[in-house]
Amino acid sequence: MSVSSPAIIPLSESVQLDATTLTPFPHSRKIYVEGSRPDIRVPMREISLSDTQLSTGEIEHNPAVTVYDSSGVYSDPAVKIDVRQGISDVRSNWIIERGDTEVLSTVSSRYGKERLDDSRLQSLRFAHQMRTPRRAKMGRNVSQLHYARQGIITPEMEYIAIRENQRIETLSVADLANRHQGESFGASIPHVITPEFVRAEVARGRAIIPANINHPEVEPMIIGRNFLVKVNANIGNSATTSSIAEEVEKMVWSIRWGADTVMDLSTGKHIHETREWILRNSPVPIGTVPIYQALEKVEGKAEELTWEIFRDTLIEQAEQGVDYFTIHAGVRLAYVPLTAKRTTGIVSRGGAIMAKWCLAHHQESFLYTHFGDICEIMQAYDVSFSLGDGLRPGSIADANDAAQFAELETLGELTKQAWQQDIQVMIEGPGHVPLHLIKENMDKQLKECDEAPFYTLGPLTTDIAPGYDHITSGIGAAMIGWYGCAMLCYVTPKEHLGLPNKHDVREGIVTYKIAAHAADLAKGHPTAQVRDNAMSKARFEFRWQDQFSLGLDPLKAQEFHDETLPKESAKVAHFCSMCGPHFCSMKITQDVREYAKQKGIVDVKIAVEAGLAEKAEEFTAQGAKLYR
Amino acid sequence: MSVSSPAIIPLSESVQLDATTLTPFPHSRKIYVEGSRPDIRVPMREISLSDTQLSTGEIEHNPAVTVYDSSGVYSDPAVKIDVRQGISDVRSNWIIERGDTEVLSTVSSRYGKERLDDSRLQSLRFAHQMRTPRRAKMGRNVSQLHYARQGIITPEMEYIAIRENQRIETLSVADLANRHQGESFGASIPHVITPEFVRAEVARGRAIIPANINHPEVEPMIIGRNFLVKVNANIGNSATTSSIAEEVEKMVWSIRWGADTVMDLSTGKHIHETREWILRNSPVPIGTVPIYQALEKVEGKAEELTWEIFRDTLIEQAEQGVDYFTIHAGVRLAYVPLTAKRTTGIVSRGGAIMAKWCLAHHQESFLYTHFGDICEIMQAYDVSFSLGDGLRPGSIADANDAAQFAELETLGELTKQAWQQDIQVMIEGPGHVPLHLIKENMDKQLKECDEAPFYTLGPLTTDIAPGYDHITSGIGAAMIGWYGCAMLCYVTPKEHLGLPNKHDVREGIVTYKIAAHAADLAKGHPTAQVRDNAMSKARFEFRWQDQFSLGLDPLKAQEFHDETLPKESAKVAHFCSMCGPHFCSMKITQDVREYAKQKGIVDVKIAVEAGLAEKAEEFTAQGAKLYR
Repeated sequence: MSVSSPAIIPLSESVQLDATTLTPFPHSRKIYVEGSRPDIRVPMREISLSDTQLSTGEIEHNPAVTVYDSSGVYSDPAVKIDVRQGISDVRSNWIIERGDTEVLSTVSSRYGKERLDDSRLQSLRFAHQMRTPRRAKMGRNVSQLHYARQGIITPEMEYIAIRENQRIETLSVADLANRHQGESFGASIPHVITPEFVRAEVARGRAIIPANINHPEVEPMIIGRNFLVKVNANIGNSATTSSIAEEVEKMVWSIRWGADTVMDLSTGKHIHETREWILRNSPVPIGTVPIYQALEKVEGKAEELTWEIFRDTLIEQAEQGVDYFTIHAGVRLAYVPLTAKRTTGIVSRGGAIMAKWCLAHHQESFLYTHFGDICEIMQAYDVSFSLGDGLRPGSIADANDAAQFAELETLGELTKQAWQQDIQVMIEGPGHVPLHLIKENMDKQLKECDEAPFYTLGPLTTDIAPGYDHITSGIGAAMIGWYGCAMLCYVTPKEHLGLPNKHDVREGIVTYKIAAHAADLAKGHPTAQVRDNAMSKARFEFRWQDQFSLGLDPLKAQEFHDETLPKESAKVAHFCSMCGPHFCSMKITQDVREYAKQKGIVDVKIAVEAGLAEKAEEFTAQGAKLYR
Repeated sequence: MSVSSPAIIPLSESVQLDATTLTPFPHSRKIYVEGSRPDIRVPMREISLSDTQLSTGEIEHNPAVTVYDSSGVYSDPAVKIDVRQGISDVRSNWIIERGDTEVLSTVSSRYGKERLDDSRLQSLRFAHQMRTPRRAKMGRNVSQLHYARQGIITPEMEYIAIRENQRIETLSVADLANRHQGESFGASIPHVITPEFVRAEVARGRAIIPANINHPEVEPMIIGRNFLVKVNANIGNSATTSSIAEEVEKMVWSIRWGADTVMDLSTGKHIHETREWILRNSPVPIGTVPIYQALEKVEGKAEELTWEIFRDTLIEQAEQGVDYFTIHAGVRLAYVPLTAKRTTGIVSRGGAIMAKWCLAHHQESFLYTHFGDICEIMQAYDVSFSLGDGLRPGSIADANDAAQFAELETLGELTKQAWQQDIQVMIEGPGHVPLHLIKENMDKQLKECDEAPFYTLGPLTTDIAPGYDHITSGIGAAMIGWYGCAMLCYVTPKEHLGLPNKHDVREGIVTYKIAAHAADLAKGHPTAQVRDNAMSKARFEFRWQDQFSLGLDPLKAQEFHDETLPKESAKVAHFCSMCGPHFCSMKITQDVREYAKQKGIVDVKIAVEAGLAEKAEEFTAQGAKLYR
């Protein structure tokens, strides 16, 4: 993204996305599946495959593979992208139709008004800044949970059902049968997701749809253990680095690689304006940690935070359209001393801020005491809770300790309180946990929080690999996803060392897409294995281009292949540079398969009986070629 | 490694290691721990740490951390490295002392003699090529298993005990106590490894010491579920790429990053000469797959392989010093048809070659029928078996199928046969396996093979991420290591796409060191958590240099940190660019710790009772600074 100095050319005129962010993936096509009404158009990515040349000379058609697509209109060549205008609106009709909201004359927050009145910010503002926010009518609750409990299937719910199914109806019985059953540890993923199932899961509190009424651009998605495991990417500037334009670019970059939600964790300058730019361009839910901005407002002095400042921040952000708030309401005064003997104390920024406040005031945190008031704000905009784990362990040594689990019990109590007010809730989780203690985390969360979705950072399974923490944590993420975690917060290679760049974001997201997919496979998700099977078939048949196209990162796969065999002819070669032509086991063994197939031999007993003792000469006479 | 054309300058004069391969890690020192005799000198790496500046002004000394060191003399600045001369000899005295071997007048294999007589190869040869091999005296068995069963504790065993302990005797009781107990699924790792324990485990067949009498350069190491989890790196040229010099460089590069053994999987030209160069420079055990070279000898025609050619190849390689042979003796004729309906057939090169041979001859494989003869060769040089999994699954779809498990049962049968002849055995394992089917692999292997060490490739937990298969497989590797796998064969980012370069080798090994260490932690290895704890303490105290030094890849950690905060002053800053100075949770929460410590508050009840209700003013009056 090229950015001129904001002092000279306003961002609203200068910002453009880097072309590489929009480069289409090879052989992928954006499609939309229409729902029960024409304005329900669910985006998916269709990967077309080449035909298989059978040894008989016949052609076998390989059906296209449809995959979940979080990349929004950025991957639709039919849509003209202009980040200065924002992306088109998906949900406004649905929100208006419900008749339970009203458009405000201006923003409600004191801070929002100040920013609006500050003419020095003009050059930084998103062009459409002047849109006015929407809020629930007095006494109404506009959360998807509220609708779900009234038995209402919203368009958002139908959209999600279509999205989660990934066109399962186009798959053959054989395609669906070729999969492992999985072990889901008590999850119950249906074969086909119906809109009613979505509603029921939301009503039960077992899934959430983060979708603020002020973020109509969002393409609805769901987070819950009975749906595909999701991935979150964190972006955000800090005092030392990054600019507004870079953050928008990072958001688009994140969803390109598969991030299902994005958290804007900015802590530097112009948090308010940065967020507006991100929201207006984001088709995925945006989460924030409002306490970060509140702290900026008191110039970094935690002890000067007040409920009033925090409340104003919640309203400011809710009216911009933030879909979920991380709120560390479980950091209770009495738990702070539990961290005293820890190796790494409190490692959550929000947790640390609140702990400092609690000690400074020797009072219970205002997030805890005002939890009911927070719920009232959330329900007026449908902001979901992401109850923060302020006391998560920051080292293997501190995993699963008294502080962590005491907070988790409080999060369980707060979950029930939020549910009483029909507010959607998910729960954040650790952190740093050795392999053998991961399941205890998941099991305790399910129990304490009554299956409210779990949303974990990693966990990192060892502390000793800075520079590779996407991997130390990707291991833990795959496992906890399998055990029942609904969304995995990515970790990049820069974790513990610095702010991630675009390369790190890509590495982090792809690693977490791997973890999420490995979890879906292990849980026995009905369609998860279709893509693996298509990849494996392409691999066995040396359809190199199809292998690249089906991968989570088609560009890197092709780049790696071409490093040693760059010629076009190598794309149809029956080997790669790893083993060379002589030693390709796939090449040798296609023969075996064909041979046995012709003999109709499928198991040991039959094999022996069918006369594998038949003359060797017969085989050799055919030129010892097993492919015929 | 700079290599001139071998036709002009002989390799023995021209080869030199690239300087970056020998760059020392920061603040690391090579140390040797002496055993019961002066020629038992066990190498370790000692990482020195800086002091902690306490808030009281006092200095706290942080003890150095000793870590396992597979890098050999290449990381010892006192040793002059010259790959043309090879590295120094560790074991010759011990081998000679046993008096059960004899030096041959020349090599025994027909092929070895041919190569020796071919003057055109002169320019390619390792300078010390003229060394003559050693063999067991007639009727003797020189395997470590044979000694162990006789109750003999060899110097190798004592060396290993010292090595595995990593100077546990220097650790304080407190250091050792600060760890999780782990869940080892039936492993029994003692607190301190004694030479007798090593002997007993080898005698039981539960661990192996790959150490050919013709590879006296090897620094003894052990592979078994009751020891530290080990990592293997594959190197080797293929017909399309790589040269001899590059392979030696890759071996040194591999052990620098922590590979415990290296397999030379060369399939291109000059396999014999390449291997000599690698062995004479390798302090770690070298494994090979002899069938690859045998196939080269019959110009790639699997059906022309014979027992005689294979036998000659085993002797040729055993006399060069190869420490373990992968032998796919479990690929039985009757199992081949079981792969017919697979998605990806047979993906093991060795398995594919043998399957083709079996079908071509309609006979049981000569590896199976001559297994006893193979054992006789192995015992004369102490080559260990790595029984190959020729029918391992090559896709998620094929995991844990009838072919795979049929072969595993045969490997169990062969294990017992080898043990009867006192030959050391480990078992190779998959492959591609979804998370929920990994444990079944480990459990079945332990049962069928009576706890002979398991040595797995990954397993990859999904097929859909070419370019990232170090990660798809690192996840599975961590899990199977935890469940009891003794050695993990690395996978690089180039898997399925091409031959790895140095960058890929580093990525692959570090990923697998993470997996192995995560497994050690989860199993409750007595010393594993010491390094994590030291890292976490350094992190909490902002000792940046110590964080780099303690990491698995100190250079990358520092490089990543410096990308955003390059100045030396940032190395003592109490924040990094990720959160910036305001938001560093570690910074904020050191206060909390200090505060609570002063109050002597350690748990919730006490906290409340101790009067956390005390006046807030008291705290604020101190300037609201929690660090004092």
